[in-house]
Amino acid sequence: MADETLLLKNVRPWGAEQTDMLIEGGRISRIEPGQSPAPGVAVEDGAGALVLPGLVEAHTHLDKSLWGMGWRMHQAGPSLRDKIDTERRLRAEWDIDPHRQSTRQALLSLGHGSTVIRSHVDIDTDVKLAGLEGVLRTADELAGQIDIETVAFPQSGLMSRPGTLELMDQALAVGADVVGGLDPCGIDADPKGHLDAVFELAERHGKPIDIHLHEPGELGAFSMEMIIDRTLAHARQGNVTISHAFCLGMPDRDRARALVQRLAEARIHIATVATPSRPVPLATDLREAGVTLCAGSDGIRDTWGPYGNADMLERAMLLGLRNNLRADADVEHALWCCTFGGAQMIGLKDYGLTNGSRADLVLVDAESVTHAVVSHPPRRLVLKGGRIVARNGQTQSRMP
Amino acid sequence: MADETLLLKNVRPWGAEQTDMLIEGGRISRIEPGQSPAPGVAVEDGAGALVLPGLVEAHTHLDKSLWGMGWRMHQAGPSLRDKIDTERRLRAEWDIDPHRQSTRQALLSLGHGSTVIRSHVDIDTDVKLAGLEGVLRTADELAGQIDIETVAFPQSGLMSRPGTLELMDQALAVGADVVGGLDPCGIDADPKGHLDAVFELAERHGKPIDIHLHEPGELGAFSMEMIIDRTLAHARQGNVTISHAFCLGMPDRDRARALVQRLAEARIHIATVATPSRPVPLATDLREAGVTLCAGSDGIRDTWGPYGNADMLERAMLLGLRNNLRADADVEHALWCCTFGGAQMIGLKDYGLTNGSRADLVLVDAESVTHAVVSHPPRRLVLKGGRIVARNGQTQSRMP
Repeated sequence: MADETLLLKNVRPWGAEQTDMLIEGGRISRIEPGQSPAPGVAVEDGAGALVLPGLVEAHTHLDKSLWGMGWRMHQAGPSLRDKIDTERRLRAEWDIDPHRQSTRQALLSLGHGSTVIRSHVDIDTDVKLAGLEGVLRTADELAGQIDIETVAFPQSGLMSRPGTLELMDQALAVGADVVGGLDPCGIDADPKGHLDAVFELAERHGKPIDIHLHEPGELGAFSMEMIIDRTLAHARQGNVTISHAFCLGMPDRDRARALVQRLAEARIHIATVATPSRPVPLATDLREAGVTLCAGSDGIRDTWGPYGNADMLERAMLLGLRNNLRADADVEHALWCCTFGGAQMIGLKDYGLTNGSRADLVLVDAESVTHAVVSHPPRRLVLKGGRIVARNGQTQSRMP
Repeated sequence: MADETLLLKNVRPWGAEQTDMLIEGGRISRIEPGQSPAPGVAVEDGAGALVLPGLVEAHTHLDKSLWGMGWRMHQAGPSLRDKIDTERRLRAEWDIDPHRQSTRQALLSLGHGSTVIRSHVDIDTDVKLAGLEGVLRTADELAGQIDIETVAFPQSGLMSRPGTLELMDQALAVGADVVGGLDPCGIDADPKGHLDAVFELAERHGKPIDIHLHEPGELGAFSMEMIIDRTLAHARQGNVTISHAFCLGMPDRDRARALVQRLAEARIHIATVATPSRPVPLATDLREAGVTLCAGSDGIRDTWGPYGNADMLERAMLLGLRNNLRADADVEHALWCCTFGGAQMIGLKDYGLTNGSRADLVLVDAESVTHAVVSHPPRRLVLKGGRIVARNGQTQSRMP
């Protein structure tokens, strides 16, 4: 299929002048207005729609969504620990099947124009590798429609739950792409043990790192500095992501900016959800320091909460609202985070809208990029490697 | 039209058991499952949809939207004063016609199921009463479809812009429903003069008060206490609203809660936008103290910023996200603010879902109230006084 040729007529790359885009061998091969299709070449008329590179869902949990399972009342208590424990209990009671649920959420993403997902997947002594196996199966089945990268994620604790480290090691051996971590102080109460273990796993398997850091204020800053130190000591620059990083939203802006400066030196990426109820890393601070900011939906309609729809254009809007971005160039940067930022973080090759880029593309009817962000209408067309995978918000594959 | 009889079959009032609702003379007259229509009575099948009372847009600016005017790049500088001055300049340059633009935004609201709007309308020495006249004309033309209440709003300053007070007086004489005010310190730099003038206007015209208070922290607390003092001294309990009230989001939670307690005693209402980038009044604090919280979209795609779509179900979601509301009962309270809360603030009579209530109703396909908030799908049907005014998101009246 990727070898088919397709001519996209009348599209505006990232809101620029209208042009035509020829796609051959899964890549953009020619961008020029007024192209006529060679005999037998399929043509899609964009009718003036924007064309954007495929959206990147840089932080979510495919194994946990309740999407399509009928409405469930929320049961979790207020603390992070409550939510973790409630989830582990309900996973079994409610039969939250990781394969079925990850397929549902991935197709939901695809319908909204995401063509790449980084998903954390729980690894613990109850579920063991079953969650990962389910998501890997989904990744395999949806190959060619959407790329799914998996993070082995010790949601219930790493050092504090004996047996988890060995399971993490196995997870990375059987196919998890990234080493996860979580609140070295707040959850594991052993920052040295936790972070040494995470970096050692990464070294052994030659894989990047992505650590959830919810710890606020100075506690989070303390853990963040330990992560930065290890990134430099292990020469892992460019291979480490910190997710959430709430501590960067601390009131002491000078302290936060000093941390951002160190993150830039260590080339550590930040993944955000732009959570409206928590302090968050400020997009402008990171941008000025040259730290890559990417974004994700986090959990979607799961036991943690009812929100989410996997729409990364809507996420760009939330990122804009959270950061009080109003000028068009600033709102466009919010979308940059949900496209190029995610691609940089994951290390995608040939991502973009230029000749030779992989034809992972999304067409959306809007007057400008900012208009697309604030209105986030249904996606007219989604292409993966040049192949049409969704149209008018509907994926070609049926949701199970 | 209001005298027609309509039988709404298979609807779930606020997510309760499915039933039928008979509507006669513009009111709900019988709620009981299994009703058969009398001869000649129109029937609408809700097919299990939720029925909610008409959504209440409690804080917006109908005279300022750029909706439908083609995309305009954002030009305003960062400060509140920049935004005010840029807007006054562009209003003329861009021909932001208050009648046309208020009609557009009101119909946008209606399509999303709002049946009542409180709109602030700029009164200043440039525009004089032209904005108000435009919105009053819209209110008149859309009567029977949506109720529009107007606030005479001294956006550019009251004491600091001589001539504005006289214009406010005229505005209230020709039909503005509410006396507006704005940052007595931050904009007018004369809190005593400003608030005395506002309360005097309210007394003279026998009208309620709605004051924009963006002032943060202790400055906002100072102005808020002056408002509370005057509310008690003038015996205006129940007739004063403070919009935004960012100071209630101050870090000193004890100080904020003490203010909330005084607001409860003075029966002052709070209108919020749930701004993700600013401290905001906390829904839970207000609810516990018995202070009515209502919500609005604020400006929609105007010279202040590109965001907004007039969807008060989406606003309930933003209110939930901003306040970290996760349990179903808490998310339902966010919707309460966007329905009953707004109705209480405005003082609507016979609002609700019980026998005898005015049949201002919205039908939405969702499994539960929380599901309606987080998914906010197109509205199946909107009724105003028993008359169908929108269907599947489309209003019966065409947008100009």
